Amino acid sequence: MLQNNFLKMNRKNFFVIIILLTTFSFGQNQIIQQKFIQKIYNVALNDGKSYNWLDHLSNQIGGRLSGSLNAERAIQWSREELNLLKIDNVYLQPVMVPKWVRGTFEYARIITGPGKTMNVPICALGGSIATPNLGIEAEVVEVKNFDELEKIGKKQINGKIVFFNRKMPDTIINPLKAYKKTVDQRTKGASIASKYGAVGVIVRSMNFRLDDFPHTGSTYYGNIPNKDRIPAAAISTNGAELLSSMLSINPKTTFYFKQNCKNYPEVLSHNVIGEIKGSEFPNEIILVGGHLDSWDLGDGSHDDGAGVVQSMEVLNIFKTLNYKPKRTIRVVLFMNEENGLKGGKEYAERARLNNENHIFALESDLGGFTPRGFSFETSKKKFLKLKNWEKFFKPYLSDNFIFGTSAPDIGPLKSDNIVLVGLRPDLQRYFEYHHAANDRFDAINKRELELGAAAMTSLVYLVDQFGIQD
Amino acid sequence: MLQNNFLKMNRKNFFVIIILLTTFSFGQNQIIQQKFIQKIYNVALNDGKSYNWLDHLSNQIGGRLSGSLNAERAIQWSREELNLLKIDNVYLQPVMVPKWVRGTFEYARIITGPGKTMNVPICALGGSIATPNLGIEAEVVEVKNFDELEKIGKKQINGKIVFFNRKMPDTIINPLKAYKKTVDQRTKGASIASKYGAVGVIVRSMNFRLDDFPHTGSTYYGNIPNKDRIPAAAISTNGAELLSSMLSINPKTTFYFKQNCKNYPEVLSHNVIGEIKGSEFPNEIILVGGHLDSWDLGDGSHDDGAGVVQSMEVLNIFKTLNYKPKRTIRVVLFMNEENGLKGGKEYAERARLNNENHIFALESDLGGFTPRGFSFETSKKKFLKLKNWEKFFKPYLSDNFIFGTSAPDIGPLKSDNIVLVGLRPDLQRYFEYHHAANDRFDAINKRELELGAAAMTSLVYLVDQFGIQD
Repeated sequence: MLQNNFLKMNRKNFFVIIILLTTFSFGQNQIIQQKFIQKIYNVALNDGKSYNWLDHLSNQIGGRLSGSLNAERAIQWSREELNLLKIDNVYLQPVMVPKWVRGTFEYARIITGPGKTMNVPICALGGSIATPNLGIEAEVVEVKNFDELEKIGKKQINGKIVFFNRKMPDTIINPLKAYKKTVDQRTKGASIASKYGAVGVIVRSMNFRLDDFPHTGSTYYGNIPNKDRIPAAAISTNGAELLSSMLSINPKTTFYFKQNCKNYPEVLSHNVIGEIKGSEFPNEIILVGGHLDSWDLGDGSHDDGAGVVQSMEVLNIFKTLNYKPKRTIRVVLFMNEENGLKGGKEYAERARLNNENHIFALESDLGGFTPRGFSFETSKKKFLKLKNWEKFFKPYLSDNFIFGTSAPDIGPLKSDNIVLVGLRPDLQRYFEYHHAANDRFDAINKRELELGAAAMTSLVYLVDQFGIQD
Repeated sequence: MLQNNFLKMNRKNFFVIIILLTTFSFGQNQIIQQKFIQKIYNVALNDGKSYNWLDHLSNQIGGRLSGSLNAERAIQWSREELNLLKIDNVYLQPVMVPKWVRGTFEYARIITGPGKTMNVPICALGGSIATPNLGIEAEVVEVKNFDELEKIGKKQINGKIVFFNRKMPDTIINPLKAYKKTVDQRTKGASIASKYGAVGVIVRSMNFRLDDFPHTGSTYYGNIPNKDRIPAAAISTNGAELLSSMLSINPKTTFYFKQNCKNYPEVLSHNVIGEIKGSEFPNEIILVGGHLDSWDLGDGSHDDGAGVVQSMEVLNIFKTLNYKPKRTIRVVLFMNEENGLKGGKEYAERARLNNENHIFALESDLGGFTPRGFSFETSKKKFLKLKNWEKFFKPYLSDNFIFGTSAPDIGPLKSDNIVLVGLRPDLQRYFEYHHAANDRFDAINKRELELGAAAMTSLVYLVDQFGIQD
């Protein structure tokens, strides 16, 4: 009995010692990581390139829709900048992308009576066809969703313009969720309304704020034949309120709009790729990226110039600190996120064909605002392990690790072997700029942008140090 | 032995049952609180008054320095608005405040040679005396801190302008800490430099960003006799960089500045107070507030129009939800935070004289940006209990409860019996606006402002429900 107790004690003590040793060694390790992360932040905030890079991309190049001359300029510029970092490898990956051109005009008015008109700000939705040369004038059917359309029925809708006026719900705290509750109006509105005989579609902009900016974004016709497609445009939130109010006074109010946008055949474009080869596990690839294309109304500073320069900054910070990664760190600037995701799909396809082993992919595509944390798309088990790293981000107030979706361009890489991650900045302002003419460099805050780059670099650093454990 | 074990089991079970019951009842309670907090957010985001109130305060009234006509207008306006809420009691609390007037001009130039001048943006520091009518021109001694001044010595400084050029350190993540590391140049620079025979003081604006806005704020002469006081002005960060660069090229570069600001005798002003009486514990006062005065260059939207309307919103939300507080909820709009803190001091003095029992005071005075959490100035023991409430704020991403300082106006209430709390919004942009001409309504984001008001209301609600436990 005594001996038995003694053995028990010993076993107990043994475990206590093991636990203490583990804690101590992890503790020591943790201090090394913390110190390195502090250095990462110091470079990003004091000596980083992200803000100046974005200044160039936004103000010297500007909006860069897939297939445009500006998109080509952005490809050449980012390749040159990556080359200047003297990393191991910089190259372009060919990809065919859609080419849609906004054209030379787009305008609209509400007509409340003979000679009584009010101009309202609209913009063509990406991928939309043009109106006839003389424009379209028709009565308006205002709905909040597709069910209402079904209830109203083809007879009432035929020959009219459908006006989708569902607001982003104010009371949803996470703006991304509010966006997802309304964006189907834009992506599917034209395709669905055309089936009821509508002649055009006007969609309320996805924007919490009441203002005068129409917000573009893709609309998809699916397999509807060209002759049956109808033109679609976004109206500013103020414009939507005005139109709705006029319709409530007089349901016979008509709407006129005109746009000469056009779809062209696909053209050749490129993803831009740069990498530092891993010293120990070169075949384990850690990807960090954003998308190089943007909409054409603003200069795409938040969507996704910020993600582009933050991703490039990860490599710049490692080079500045003379950090030699164990694993291969690859930056990918994807083409064509906005209207096709062709870059992301092509990249994933090539990675599969080449049997590349991506262990981790991080994308920034929600604007350059103060980072709050990361969203992990992986198994719950892996997520819970990664969540232990929150402590490293606590001093930087970016320690909100959530289990959820990641980001569009890295989505096609999804498999059981990869952890997909999206940077999660503060989003309260994001949808005021998203896809609109005011998504411009002056809406970027230098420190916020740099803090995002530093958080991304720190996470990539931790993955490089520890790998991904099952 | 068996019986003993049985007893042990029973005792064990008893505790398990107690724990389960506690968890369950707390769980039930927690759900009730969570639901009410959801309602609070719904009102703030959907049906709140804070943004429109701030629009009026900023755009119809504007900058409201203590003792000015605008400050008086703000007092009358906020009293009327509180009266419209039909709360139990609205009144003004008299307080004598300093009156300093900026005057009709302030300008400056760098003189690099005969006829070679460059204008730079300056503004007089609050409380500063004027320059002589013809202005001051003198050589410049550039320093980073008071130690350097001591090293250079009176002989070298006598008759010159001292230029304090210490930057806010970029690499400090919390901007408030970076501010506190530099603001002594502004508050004490003139008083200290005058002892070395300086004829004037120019202070680099407390602003991370390089831009053209000079940032004002108080400077204090202490007990230096009037005849020995020297004028002090802030220079924009770009101006500071330019001046420093010119001095590095030619140390004989002179600086000229002219300002006709003036100090007047104290005048009568008021704190604005409104309250809902508690139904169960009317003598336990929960205070929520901000400061009604602002600097004069902008319209004081962030500092502290935001805090004013968020505090008023707490009462508005309770009235909208028909919530009858158990304790007395009192909003206090303090006068004269910026250049004297007379309102805060007077309020605390009166509270003491009237033996009022303040159990809790919450102030918002760090701008109207996305709320991240609260900073608690109390005992560690009370703080750890309050920290249990973080869970209520997690769905709103405002759950960062820290142990630290609170806010200026409620500071004089400090005692062992009160918990002082400061709202902690995201601060990365704050010092770009703080005390400068660009602190204007257009720098306010509606949702961010409203989320702050909702977080404040929720915390006040929890204190009202549970009180403060020792």
